[in-house]
Formats: sequence, structure tokens, C-alpha cells
Amino acid sequence: MNQKAVSVLGLGDMGAALAGALLAAGHRVTVWNRTAAKAEPLVARGATSADTAADAIVASELVVVCLLDYDSVGQVLAPHTDVLAGRTLVNLTNGTPGQAREMAAWAADHGADYLDGGIMAVPPMIATPSAFVLYSGPSGAFETWRTVLDVFGESRYLGDDAGAAALQDLALLSGMYGVIAGALHAFALVRSTGGSTREFAPLLSEWLQGMVTWPVAAAEQIDAGDYGENVVSNLGMQAAGFANHFIAAEEQGISAELLRPLHELMQRRVADGHGHEDVVGVVELLKR
Amino acid sequence: MNQKAVSVLGLGDMGAALAGALLAAGHRVTVWNRTAAKAEPLVARGATSADTAADAIVASELVVVCLLDYDSVGQVLAPHTDVLAGRTLVNLTNGTPGQAREMAAWAADHGADYLDGGIMAVPPMIATPSAFVLYSGPSGAFETWRTVLDVFGESRYLGDDAGAAALQDLALLSGMYGVIAGALHAFALVRSTGGSTREFAPLLSEWLQGMVTWPVAAAEQIDAGDYGENVVSNLGMQAAGFANHFIAAEEQGISAELLRPLHELMQRRVADGHGHEDVVGVVELLKR
Repeated sequence: MNQKAVSVLGLGDMGAALAGALLAAGHRVTVWNRTAAKAEPLVARGATSADTAADAIVASELVVVCLLDYDSVGQVLAPHTDVLAGRTLVNLTNGTPGQAREMAAWAADHGADYLDGGIMAVPPMIATPSAFVLYSGPSGAFETWRTVLDVFGESRYLGDDAGAAALQDLALLSGMYGVIAGALHAFALVRSTGGSTREFAPLLSEWLQGMVTWPVAAAEQIDAGDYGENVVSNLGMQAAGFANHFIAAEEQGISAELLRPLHELMQRRVADGHGHEDVVGVVELLKR
Repeated sequence: MNQKAVSVLGLGDMGAALAGALLAAGHRVTVWNRTAAKAEPLVARGATSADTAADAIVASELVVVCLLDYDSVGQVLAPHTDVLAGRTLVNLTNGTPGQAREMAAWAADHGADYLDGGIMAVPPMIATPSAFVLYSGPSGAFETWRTVLDVFGESRYLGDDAGAAALQDLALLSGMYGVIAGALHAFALVRSTGGSTREFAPLLSEWLQGMVTWPVAAAEQIDAGDYGENVVSNLGMQAAGFANHFIAAEEQGISAELLRPLHELMQRRVADGHGHEDVVGVVELLKR
């Protein structure tokens, strides 16, 4: 095993999980956290605790940053621009594509390589086969550190736009929140008759299983810009049938607010003359 | 094969597919449609075309109804209450739980058994292994006709509340629309950088695959009424992190309207003091 020096800035649940994975893989890990007590369990496992963020940056060529948000990243790194040159910063803090691009430019100004990452896992999943991490930034930096980064979970490189990882991270999360919103409405309906959501859930899971490949077919239409081929259940019919969701919610005494924005977009798309097309064309209305 | 007489009222795409499946299974099929021309292809395959809905009802003990909506069902059946006694009506028309319950009571008043159904398939899927149909109403009627109904797709019986099939049908569809809404937002984000949605789609599918069993875990919490056990990523953190979706949408020039209602509910639930709990508890806010 090729042991490397790696520093981790930020020891919240996620940062601590990342540092723990690096230790488990045999790397020389230096950790820093604003409140130093968080470092203790990691020091007990062999990590070195740095007194200052600057000390942690100096200690390793690879510096993994996992803080609350980009404001925190700025506050922690800004005073130490003099020690950044020659380092590779891997920023796994949650943020937006714009924040990642700005941070990449800032790092370049100070002579550091910058990779942005989006962790598609919760802390207990780190270093398990279920975890994967999206990375974007210079491919050379990614290739240099890929083996080390692989200890967190499968590394997926998305290209040199530093914003790509944050963008696809948010895109995947919006897919997740779609599932959550749809399922919560479904559960509210089932509960409204006194039904057991536990009995209903396997049917919903099976139904969602049938939806898993829907994005692949939808993407074909979007990239082709053609929503009118082989339409089985057209938007006009779906938009009209959608009314049953609101009537049923009213009958059952539940709120249908989670379903409203999609229906409004469907109706707008029908009004624009696309009722004979597929529902996928609604994506055109999300551009501003 | 035990050949039965079955009538089908309504020959839209779905009704025609149902009649075709019955013919393919060797049943004696009588069909009726408001505009008679729709019957021709089925007559060519061996169906008998009835001149009136009353003739079609009289022709078979089992009468399958698949019309545009419940208003149409009422208009078609109401003039023929004298021929309903002793028949079993299986109503596969899209509707709401309340409409189904009302229709069940009306059928009972006229001496007919009534099963309500929700077809979880589009017409080309009828009689394939991908199709299933939810049924609710008297179990005796379901058991009597189950073998015939099985030709449409797997029959799933949900109990004697006539509204149950429509309710679970709409619940599953709301799950589907959740997936669609989340995926369309994701695609809008990916497109906003000029990215290929086709390249991104397999990653989204893989991510959704990981969400398929989410409802099962969520339902455990809902039935237990306890959203505070083993919380890995609490609602407060998720509601705060959600802001990145809106900032990124603004940066990328897309509308985040599909995500707003879930976020608003999450914020309300946090304000109500449930920030330390799981996001699943948001379901409590959908009751009115």
C-alpha cells in the first residue's frame, strides 16, 4: 500500500468519516477542526492533530476540505494563501456550481490545484461499496490522487469544469427529493383511509422499480429535442387525468401541494400546443 | 380453458386493449362503444358488436367498463338500470376513491356486484407480464372472476372498500409523478451547462435504484409515528442544505419551482420543532 500524507480540514460527521477511511487505508493523516476536541477519536486511531489550519495544510500535499459550507471554507483558507502553492485542495463541502468555480479560480490564483467533489453518501456509508463521490477539476490532479480518493467510495470524474460535481450532486439530490415528495403524497393518501403504509410500501417500491430506467428514455427525447415520437400516454391526457389527484386529495382530506407545480407546468405545456407530445417536454419550461 | 361471456363497454385505446386480451384468451366477447366504428377491428377478431349498451350488458354476466371518466360511466349505465341485476360490473375507468364508492352503492341499489379497478399499465402493456391491475370491492365477486381478469395483467385484490383501488392507483401515480418531477429538474440543471442529459441519465437511474426501497423504511416510521430513531441526515440539515438547489438554479438560469413545495414543508416541520427528526415526518403536514 502506497502510504500518503493527507490532511483533512473539518471534522463534522462527514469529515470525521473521511479521515477515518484514510486512517483505515493506512495513510498518514493530519486533521484540523475549529473545535479541537473533535480530533481526539481520530488521534486515538493514529491521526496527527494540527493546531492551526495552516499547520494542517503544510503537513500534506493533499488537503481534503469538508466544512459546513463555502463561507466556512473561505474563512478557514483565506488567511493561509501563503502555504497553498503546490498543494491539491479537494473540496468536498456541499455547495453550488458557481461557488465551486469561484473557489477553483481562487485556488489557481494561489498556486494550488483544485478538485471539487460531491459525496453521494451519508457518513456511515463512507468506505462502503454503496458510496460514490463525484469529482471535477483538472484531470491531472484527479489522476494523481485517484487511488487515495477511492478509499471514500467509488470516484467518478466528470471533467474539468470545477462546477460539474456540485451540479450533478444537486441534480441527483433533486431526483431523490422527487421520489421523497411523490412517496410522501402517496403515504398521506393511504393513511387517509386508515390504511397501513407498511402494507402499501412494497407495492410502491415495486412500482418505483419500474420507473428507474425512465430517465434514460426521457434523456433520449431531451437530447433529440423531440417529444412527439412513439407517445403512448400523451401530455394532454395526463394533464386532464391529473385532476383526479386533486379531487381525491379533497375527498380524503389531505393536501396535494406536493403535486401542484408539475401539474401547472403540464397545463402550461398543453396550452402551448404540446398536448399530443410526451410529458418529458415539460423540461423546456424550466429554462428561464 | 374455461370460456366465459364478457362484455366490454368503451373502446378507447385501453378498452380495446382489454377486449383484445379477452379475445386472445378465448372468451366470448361482446363490445360496445359510443362510436361504433371502434368495434370493427375487434369484430374482425371474433367479437360481437352490440348496438346498445343495454344489449352489451344483457349479453354477459361480466361487464367490464372502461370509459373516459365517471361522468361517462354514469351516462352510459344510468338508462339501463333494469338490466343490471345479477351482473358483475368491473369498472376500470380512471377516477377517485369517492367516485368508486358512490358507483358501488349505486350498483348495489340495482342488484349488481361492483368491483372497481385501477390499471397500472398503458394499453400496449395489457396482457404482458409488466401489467398489474388493482381491484377492490366484494371478495366473492373478485374470486368468481379473478381468472378472467388475470388476462389483463396480474390481479391484486385490495379489500372490500370499493375506493381502495382508485386510491392506491392515484398513490402509485403520485409516486411516479414525483420521480418525473425530480428527474425533470435534474435534467434542466444538467442541460443548463450544455451537458448531455443522455450521458447523465444512467447515473440518475443508478441513484434512483438506490431509492427504490426508501418507501419501505419510511413506512416503518410512519406506521410507528416515530421519526426520531436512527436519523442519519436530519431534517434541519437537509432543509438548510436545500438552499443550494435554489442558488444553483438561479446561477444556472433555471426554474426550481418543482422543488419548492417540499422545501416549504420541510421548513414548516423544522419550525414546528422537528429539525432533529427524519424528513419522513413531513407527511404529518399533509393531513388537513
